[in-house]
Amino acid sequence: MIWDKKKIQDAGIEGNWVMGLHDFVRYSDLDTYDHVNNKVYHTWFENLRIIYLSNSGFDFKNKSNPMPVVRTASIEFNLAMFLGEKYTTVIRCSKVGNTSFDLDYEVHSEQKLKAIGRTKIVMADLVAGKPVPLNNKLRELFITRDIASY
Amino acid sequence: MIWDKKKIQDAGIEGNWVMGLHDFVRYSDLDTYDHVNNKVYHTWFENLRIIYLSNSGFDFKNKSNPMPVVRTASIEFNLAMFLGEKYTTVIRCSKVGNTSFDLDYEVHSEQKLKAIGRTKIVMADLVAGKPVPLNNKLRELFITRDIASY
Amino acid sequence: MIWDKKKIQDAGIEGNWVMGLHDFVRYSDLDTYDHVNNKVYHTWFENLRIIYLSNSGFDFKNKSNPMPVVRTASIEFNLAMFLGEKYTTVIRCSKVGNTSFDLDYEVHSEQKLKAIGRTKIVMADLVAGKPVPLNNKLRELFITRDIASY
Amino acid sequence: MIWDKKKIQDAGIEGNWVMGLHDFVRYSDLDTYDHVNNKVYHTWFENLRIIYLSNSGFDFKNKSNPMPVVRTASIEFNLAMFLGEKYTTVIRCSKVGNTSFDLDYEVHSEQKLKAIGRTKIVMADLVAGKPVPLNNKLRELFITRDIASY
Repeated sequence: MIWDKKKIQDAGIEGNWVMGLHDFVRYSDLDTYDHVNNKVYHTWFENLRIIYLSNSGFDFKNKSNPMPVVRTASIEFNLAMFLGEKYTTVIRCSKVGNTSFDLDYEVHSEQKLKAIGRTKIVMADLVAGKPVPLNNKLRELFITRDIASY
Repeated sequence: MIWDKKKIQDAGIEGNWVMGLHDFVRYSDLDTYDHVNNKVYHTWFENLRIIYLSNSGFDFKNKSNPMPVVRTASIEFNLAMFLGEKYTTVIRCSKVGNTSFDLDYEVHSEQKLKAIGRTKIVMADLVAGKPVPLNNKLRELFITRDIASY
Repeated sequence: MIWDKKKIQDAGIEGNWVMGLHDFVRYSDLDTYDHVNNKVYHTWFENLRIIYLSNSGFDFKNKSNPMPVVRTASIEFNLAMFLGEKYTTVIRCSKVGNTSFDLDYEVHSEQKLKAIGRTKIVMADLVAGKPVPLNNKLRELFITRDIASY
Repeated sequence: MIWDKKKIQDAGIEGNWVMGLHDFVRYSDLDTYDHVNNKVYHTWFENLRIIYLSNSGFDFKNKSNPMPVVRTASIEFNLAMFLGEKYTTVIRCSKVGNTSFDLDYEVHSEQKLKAIGRTKIVMADLVAGKPVPLNNKLRELFITRDIASY
């Protein structure tokens, strides 16, 4: 279930988060340790990112340039997660550059911060193979809606 | 979101379905054709099966014997599915044998039947490596609740 | 590693198999039972199928019509598989119809048959949304090379 | 195919890499952009890490304490990868602490560096829920074999 700003705040999750995906841990998220596998968090970030960027005006159906491309990704794992556990992944843009922007993520569950993530996204002309400036409309949206630094 | 019998019926999905998992297609479900990849349906079936079997009395935390093991699986793909599409996967036991039982699945979306699945599950003593009889309580549950043939 | 007919036969795998993919079980193939998860076999079939169909003349880079689409899939699991286990997945076309064909698969390891699969593939005009006849060149190839029935 | 130090050097991959996994891109590694999906690199790192740590003396079959747990992970994506592309993922320990160590990864293909990764691993007593010191034998191995800083 998609959560908006208000719902995220009502759940006691602090920060300028713009969108959330509330879900529960599925069997396929687990590995041999019966807990959520490390790489699954990246899947959660990715699935939310696509919805968030689509809602922000990106058109993923048109695969022509420029496209948002993940340049770097980092994650910090705080606490293990288990089958059936309800959690919320949240997202916001924390920083806007000329040709790139940072997206931040957190996974919350049981009133605890389970994981923290960040990806640097570069706007790229995939044919020419080089970065291109982010358009002004998106830039403004990230600064006003997400309280992104710039 | 887990759906019960009533919610499944209210959505116009016919049949003696016992439980459903209502969800929407995520980016990670897609392949290079921009539609849900074939093997993802098996993940949906599996994730619902674990919840359904847990609710039916199976204890997956105790990995001692006997355990339900998938012996055969079949699936029929009717219509492609796409990003963001809301769907419901439903499950029931359609047949009970002495040491095995059949679980049936369907995926419904937009008032259409998207896929049909069936798995034969064998109760197995994993240490001895041989099938064991299904206990009477489960047998009765499948027959009365799921209207399983026997 | 891709195996040809001769290499498959030399390994003692019987049948008219045309191509094989020799590999070993990775950690990511496992589930909470420390064995290869059911749906992973479908991934193995799919990965080999794409190579096999490309080698047979299908062009997956051109996503225009007609495309091979999986209509049904079935699998039989014989024996569990574990981390590090070396195995070979083999493939052949067992039957050619007018607009469809059957692909058979087996997974062999340690001189044992671990799993058996079959998928019915339909040649589809994805724009018109209907099946189209398989071209004669492919039909001939399947009959002569794979000893497919027709 | 597992590569040792010599094979890695012979392929022209510079650095004190201890082990490599040479493979080719499978269909299931791709996403809707026809290139290798971001999270798949984490799977490659994970699969190699399990083999590397097993070879270094870790016993993953005994799930009692202490276990190596991923605390942080970061990755930098340099160049897109495509179906059939042959690549080598390499690994080494770059730094040893008291209760933790850093594992570094690189993905090389076509004489180019495709991706760079790092994970901080903590030795954890999962029952007590706290970090424990790395044993001296492993510490020595990482320092002498991997030329890890400390």
